[in-house]
This record gives sequence, structure tokens and C-alpha cells, in this order.
Amino acid sequence: MRRAFFIQSVLMGLSFIFDLDGTLVDTVYLHALAWHEALEAMGLHIAYWRIHRRVGMSDDLIAPALGNEIGRELSDAEIERIRRLHSDAFLKRAEAIRPLPGASDMLNALTRAKTPWTIATSSNRERARHSLDLLGVGADVPIVTREPGIRGKPNPDLFLRAADLLKAERDSCVVIGDSIWDLLGARRARMLGIGVLSGGNAQEELISAGAYRVYEDMAHVLSHLDELGI
Amino acid sequence: MRRAFFIQSVLMGLSFIFDLDGTLVDTVYLHALAWHEALEAMGLHIAYWRIHRRVGMSDDLIAPALGNEIGRELSDAEIERIRRLHSDAFLKRAEAIRPLPGASDMLNALTRAKTPWTIATSSNRERARHSLDLLGVGADVPIVTREPGIRGKPNPDLFLRAADLLKAERDSCVVIGDSIWDLLGARRARMLGIGVLSGGNAQEELISAGAYRVYEDMAHVLSHLDELGI
Repeated sequence: MRRAFFIQSVLMGLSFIFDLDGTLVDTVYLHALAWHEALEAMGLHIAYWRIHRRVGMSDDLIAPALGNEIGRELSDAEIERIRRLHSDAFLKRAEAIRPLPGASDMLNALTRAKTPWTIATSSNRERARHSLDLLGVGADVPIVTREPGIRGKPNPDLFLRAADLLKAERDSCVVIGDSIWDLLGARRARMLGIGVLSGGNAQEELISAGAYRVYEDMAHVLSHLDELGI
Repeated sequence: MRRAFFIQSVLMGLSFIFDLDGTLVDTVYLHALAWHEALEAMGLHIAYWRIHRRVGMSDDLIAPALGNEIGRELSDAEIERIRRLHSDAFLKRAEAIRPLPGASDMLNALTRAKTPWTIATSSNRERARHSLDLLGVGADVPIVTREPGIRGKPNPDLFLRAADLLKAERDSCVVIGDSIWDLLGARRARMLGIGVLSGGNAQEELISAGAYRVYEDMAHVLSHLDELGI
């Protein structure tokens, strides 16, 4: 209870918006693998590291971006096929998904401290569901996923939608994410962005993308909440 | 022929030592996956990004290092079992291995330019063989692999052995690798280290580890050989 009170006083007036993949669940490498498998199935060869750096973008942006890496424009039909193959390859590995250290603890700590939070993910609801179950986030907790008409990260739409959902002003919102697309989106939404290393990006990459602070993972953020200095 | 002559004049007096995994072949993410699978099979949970950062160390160093991440010492029997599970999990994915862009071209260009080169890998000969075949490196080309008595990276032993093999002085040797363990090993061997991003490490991580220059991948190195400034 003292801990909850402490967190409550530190976070007074703030609202938290979390990315899902690579931030709360350990899925970035599984996504990279699934994109690689999808591309190879179409005879397209892109090195893993280039795919890794693109994960966290929304599907409709990542597929054409991967086309750039190949050096030719992909047709709409090709993009649609790659997206479907990626989704199948990822869902096939769903049982390998693990929550990241401290993720559930963080969400529970915020709930106990009555600090508003939500999750804003580029994934669709179906693909997010399994991860949310692992985190103990029930279907009754409102979160923001990709829907037709909402542009994915690094566009700020998902974060703006999340602020609306939380009835929070933009400048009281803190975005926590592992990819440079989260941090760029946060800046475009005029929100503070906190980076975590758990998606495999380096500290300097996250700082270059505008991170206000960088931590290893959610456990590390939770143990340094008094340091956020907001 | 003009190209070979140009490379020959730029590289006069130099010898090249290449790392294999993540530098010439696109295997770092497959290794991370294989280690993760091995650890999970033993009921040990370590996030992918922490495993990724350890790849490139030799097996006998990486397994205890992963123990550090769990926060307890692993027994010799556990380490042996993890190493075996990792090796099996990796070899199972051998058909997914692709050479990295420019890797074969680079080796061929050096051969044509009569510039001595070899490969120094923390892998054992069996695990390296499939990758070497993909690169067109025949069994007649002498390379340095892990053997009993040779300490793995970041120890400098493999690179010193490579210099002996090439009959080259240490200070004429250039090491090219993707991991911080390659670059630390190169410094300990008093050789220049060139970093490549193709293993998924960020430029700043490689520079912090002592890289003299950093390029995207072998294709990028090859097109900038005149820039090495050595």
C-alpha cells in the first residue's frame, strides 16, 4: 500500500500509453522471423537485421518499406500476400510468446495507484489477444488497436486515440515503447516517449528517435519510477 | 581486372580476418532463436534481446553468461545440456541460412586482388561447414574454428591463430565482424576492427566496442574499400 501511495504521488496527473510488441511481450524477434519467412516464401531475400529495424511499424507501412529494401515497388497483391503469410507465420508461434519481465507488475502497479493507462498497438485485435491474455489484460480493458482509418506508427493516430480513450490531455501522456516508430509517433503526438531496450534496439537509436529516458525493460522502469522526473 | 588492380593497390600489405555468423552469413537471429528454444526447454526464461546481445561469444562463454542473466550459476551439466540443445535447434534451421549481401563478392574480390584473408569463427567446424558451402568457401581454404585449447571471442586467440595462418603481422590485420565480441577481441589482438550492422547491433554499440569504421554489410564495405584509410 505504501508502494502504491508512493507511485500515486510520483505519477499524479500522468497517463500511460504502452506499446505491446517488444514492450510488454517478447515478440519482436518472433515478428522478425515471421516477416523473414513470409518474404522467403515469395522468393524475396532481406537480411534479418533490416527486418528487425522495421518491426513496430504497422503492417501496411512495413510491407512497402520492405519493398524499398529490395529495391523495387511491390504490387498491392504482393503486399497483401506478404502480410497474410507474416500473420500466419506469427500466429503459428503464438505459444512461444512470453511476457517481458515486469510488464504485468507495471500494469498492476499503475492500476493500484489509480494512474490511467492503456495499450496502443499497431497489431490488429486478433493478433494482440493472445499477448493480452498472457499479461492478464482482460477483454474488458479498453485498448487501441489498428482499425481501418487509423494510421499506424510512426503516425501519431494510435496515441491520440489512446489519449481520447483515457480522457487525458496530450501533454500529460507518457508513451512507453521499444521501437523508434513508437518514439517518433510520441513526438508527433507531442507526448513524452520512454524507450525500452527489450525490443533489441540500442539505447542510442532510441535517444536519436527522441526518447526522453531509456530503460532496459518494464521491470527496470518500475524500479525507477521516481526517476522519471516529470 | 581494373577493379582487382585498384583493390590490390588500396589493400597492399593488409590481411583480412572475417567473422562468420552475422558477418558473412545471416545467422545471428537464428542463433538467438536457437538459444531461446534451448533455454525454454530447460524452463529458463531470458528475453530475446539479452540473448541477441550475447551471440558472437563462444558457446563456452555464452552459456554461463546467460546464467548471469537468470541470476544464478548454472551447473556444468546444465551448461552442457543448453549447448547441445542450442546446437540441435540451430542445425534444424540450417536450410534457412542465407549468405549476407556482398559476402561472396568480398571474398572473391580479395582473392582476385591477391590479398590474404581467412575466417575466424567461434563456431565449431561442423556447424560452420554449411555456411561455408553457401559462401563457396571450399574445404581446401584454411579457416580458424573453435578447438579445445583455443579460447573463444572476446578472447583474441582466434584472431592471433588467424594471423599465424596467414603469416601476417598483427598490425597488418583487419578484423571484420558484427558483434561487440569481435571488436573487443580485435582490440585485444591489437588489430583494426571494422564493424558491420548485419548482426543487428547498432552503429554506436560497435563504435563503443572499438570499431575503427562501421558499415551496413559486406556489400557496403566492398563499395567503400577506398575509404578504409589504412
